[in-house]
Amino acid sequence: MQQRTYLDHAASAPLRPEAVAAMTAELTRVGNPSSLHTSGRAARRVVEESREVIAAALGAAPSEVIFTSGATEADNLILKGAFRARSEPSRLLIPRSEHHAVLDSVESLTTEGAVPELLDVDRQGMVDAEQLAALLADRPETIAVVSIMWANNETGVVQPIREFAELARRSGVLFHTDAVQAAGAIPIDFAADGPDALSVTAHKLGGPVGVGALLARKELKLAPIQHGGGQERDLRSGTLDVAGIAGFAAAIAVARQQMSAETARLRALRSRLVDGVLGTQGATGIDGSSLNGSRSPEHSLPGIANVSFAGCQADNLLLLLDQAGIDSSAGSACTAGVSEPSHVLMAMGHSVEQARSSVRFSLGHTSTEADVDHLLRVLPEAVERARRAG
Amino acid sequence: MQQRTYLDHAASAPLRPEAVAAMTAELTRVGNPSSLHTSGRAARRVVEESREVIAAALGAAPSEVIFTSGATEADNLILKGAFRARSEPSRLLIPRSEHHAVLDSVESLTTEGAVPELLDVDRQGMVDAEQLAALLADRPETIAVVSIMWANNETGVVQPIREFAELARRSGVLFHTDAVQAAGAIPIDFAADGPDALSVTAHKLGGPVGVGALLARKELKLAPIQHGGGQERDLRSGTLDVAGIAGFAAAIAVARQQMSAETARLRALRSRLVDGVLGTQGATGIDGSSLNGSRSPEHSLPGIANVSFAGCQADNLLLLLDQAGIDSSAGSACTAGVSEPSHVLMAMGHSVEQARSSVRFSLGHTSTEADVDHLLRVLPEAVERARRAG
Repeated sequence: MQQRTYLDHAASAPLRPEAVAAMTAELTRVGNPSSLHTSGRAARRVVEESREVIAAALGAAPSEVIFTSGATEADNLILKGAFRARSEPSRLLIPRSEHHAVLDSVESLTTEGAVPELLDVDRQGMVDAEQLAALLADRPETIAVVSIMWANNETGVVQPIREFAELARRSGVLFHTDAVQAAGAIPIDFAADGPDALSVTAHKLGGPVGVGALLARKELKLAPIQHGGGQERDLRSGTLDVAGIAGFAAAIAVARQQMSAETARLRALRSRLVDGVLGTQGATGIDGSSLNGSRSPEHSLPGIANVSFAGCQADNLLLLLDQAGIDSSAGSACTAGVSEPSHVLMAMGHSVEQARSSVRFSLGHTSTEADVDHLLRVLPEAVERARRAG
Repeated sequence: MQQRTYLDHAASAPLRPEAVAAMTAELTRVGNPSSLHTSGRAARRVVEESREVIAAALGAAPSEVIFTSGATEADNLILKGAFRARSEPSRLLIPRSEHHAVLDSVESLTTEGAVPELLDVDRQGMVDAEQLAALLADRPETIAVVSIMWANNETGVVQPIREFAELARRSGVLFHTDAVQAAGAIPIDFAADGPDALSVTAHKLGGPVGVGALLARKELKLAPIQHGGGQERDLRSGTLDVAGIAGFAAAIAVARQQMSAETARLRALRSRLVDGVLGTQGATGIDGSSLNGSRSPEHSLPGIANVSFAGCQADNLLLLLDQAGIDSSAGSACTAGVSEPSHVLMAMGHSVEQARSSVRFSLGHTSTEADVDHLLRVLPEAVERARRAG
């Protein structure tokens, strides 16, 4: 049987065994956590204990955790919720390189009078702090939210969130960060890092799909986007998914606990991958390959490498890699199959051609040296064939 | 150990073994169904096969199934989506006895110019068809949606949905039904019954919490409420929960297959319960107890019995029943702990006092004669003690 290698952890990570165990235990129990009887109270206990674990892993208070169906909903909730809680239409500041959950939420609000203002990023994908400061200085009371992704899902570029949160705080503007890729991968301390709100999802860090959270300071004024039974402080109605929440807690607890060891391990694997692809003094690598994003450990996630292969169509290359047993992607899974070139790479100043020639390899908790070596073994021929295919 | 009896299936049903098995199989596989590689395509296959199973169980086409995080989201999507897809503010017709997911979605839209029009229900909980017809005859082009729950979650009262859908169709008005309690319990044929949209959730029919669907005819114009990666025909962004969807499909398939046998079995159990509580020629029952809703099998779900106990505070009674090993509730779990009397019973013309003295017993796939007998054994003393407590 063909060896298969999963290099797409940023799209969805395999469920950690601890999460499987936590979920399996809950799946066979019954009880709606809103019910007051014994079964309901037992379910509620699991939810609240999980809330404490998740809050602790992110340096937040349990009361700041609002469970959602995932980060897409969390992003929608903070952007629409903060905008709609105001009596006057307002401005929304976001970088051009945000995830579509943020970009499209903001775009959708233009029909309600929202004014989006897009922040530029440089060639390395870093947000322009001076532009941010200038926009924040201009009528800050008319800005509903600044939302800046902690770590980019396509390039792994890590922004100086603490610095940006401090800028926003000084202007009295609500600061949100989509920390989907950062959570579980690099340290997050909601209290000390200073954002007012933060989106996270379980399945990118080894928890189940379908559950995530918005961390939000208690004093934030938000309009709900989903109305009903009034769960989660009336901010997110809908029956709470006890099994999913227990799996989320189990996964983030392990991720947090193993973080420093995993960071070192994944950085070494990523270096092995990047060196093998780009070449080092000892090895030739693949001609015409270049790393997108930052090479600085401070500004890059341990597990994501986004590489352009000049003269390749990424679609062809991914197909050839798939045939050779490698699961990888050309950026966000959400927009896989969409023929648009990556808006993230375009925002970084890459040409359409270069954006279309880029592949994301993302490592995670199941990744091994053998995975990287498998890729390095099959990549040269795949690139060559993709180039010949045009 | 105390015998525990779960009589709160309408709040959340125990996961069926078939659903546990389907989910467990998926939990250990990786792959985002939006990814194009082998793992992603395998995940997509599970999603699409599940979509076919769910569609078939409800008499719908697979392309009419939009997966959501549950029925609360599905209700929000159809009401807000249909309202916002119009260029002019419009009217929304709903009965007073709807679930809060519908009531509060409609209420939230009043800030955007929506005009709610509330339909009355009679003493048995039935919607007033003449009032509906009159409202539909009055400028039908200004009505965005009529939404009428198929079966009420508190009383189990079943509306003549086919008749109402036909009324709406003749006026050219979009007709939606929240079929959360009906799905899996009574036959639903989306095509033949004629609604344009229908909400369903997995966990009320023995599937997992956190996954549901809106069935919606392809030609409906809806604005999304959750923006992002563009999943589900761009109507519901967010990574699809493969394990949850597989569990949903497994549960609804079994529910559909066993429906006629289960209906007979549950009707018999419910009769045993109702006869035991209210009394029959052969037995005395509990003085001052009365059934809320309809006694007609055509207009009541097989598994729900809502009973008032004159002179009891339901809160006290539920606590005493819980101590005696019975999990039951005073209506919707979503609003458990809320001190408001049931808006459903109030809409049916009950007094506040009567509404506050009412308990919902709901049976489901795990219910047995022993469960009913357990209730009947402990109920008289619990009622007596609750009455003494005031």
